[in-house]
Amino acid sequence: MAISVFLSIFTQKSRTMVATVVHVFVKPEFVEAFISATRENHENSVKETGNLRFDILQEPGNPTKFVFYEAYATEEAAAKHKETAHYMKWRDTVAPWMAQPREGVKHTLLFPENK
Amino acid sequence: MAISVFLSIFTQKSRTMVATVVHVFVKPEFVEAFISATRENHENSVKETGNLRFDILQEPGNPTKFVFYEAYATEEAAAKHKETAHYMKWRDTVAPWMAQPREGVKHTLLFPENK
Repeated sequence: MAISVFLSIFTQKSRTMVATVVHVFVKPEFVEAFISATRENHENSVKETGNLRFDILQEPGNPTKFVFYEAYATEEAAAKHKETAHYMKWRDTVAPWMAQPREGVKHTLLFPENK
Repeated sequence: MAISVFLSIFTQKSRTMVATVVHVFVKPEFVEAFISATRENHENSVKETGNLRFDILQEPGNPTKFVFYEAYATEEAAAKHKETAHYMKWRDTVAPWMAQPREGVKHTLLFPENK
């Protein structure tokens, strides 16, 4: 009984899907290079265990403004993204191209419920 | 030749995937009812032709604040969502529960490139 309660709590915690919306502001002269570096980061990130989405958006009326929509099956999987070689390479590559610091907000992903 | 150029332009236009990030602010006393109505909207919206994502997020530190992440294969498919019975039902149901008007920004979905 105690074990089943423990497992239930553990399972519930692990099943909380998370989705982060990150606003990214790029210096105009680096937009093309940024898209290229970000394509590589996207291609590797979607292969990570627990990754559900790694969508890259660009604002049509404001092409220096991007949004990253990153969803993971668990909080732990989201945290591990920051430890990957491809994330660290991307982060260091784009650092001098940022017009201002990135702004990210982490959310609970309510729906879809099962991925 | 002229036809193939025309078709190429047409195909390119149709292939522009769009993703809208909508910020939704709910009156605290209606949060549960809002989640229930939104679940139904989500379940129907993901069945729409051209729908790629219809993710519903909630901010953990601010449970009256939601984000809808809606991606469609084409601009046309995104526009058709607003004409569906389930969207109109949801819109009318939640109208009195809004704390302030929704704020949506439409983007071009760069990556993934093929869905």
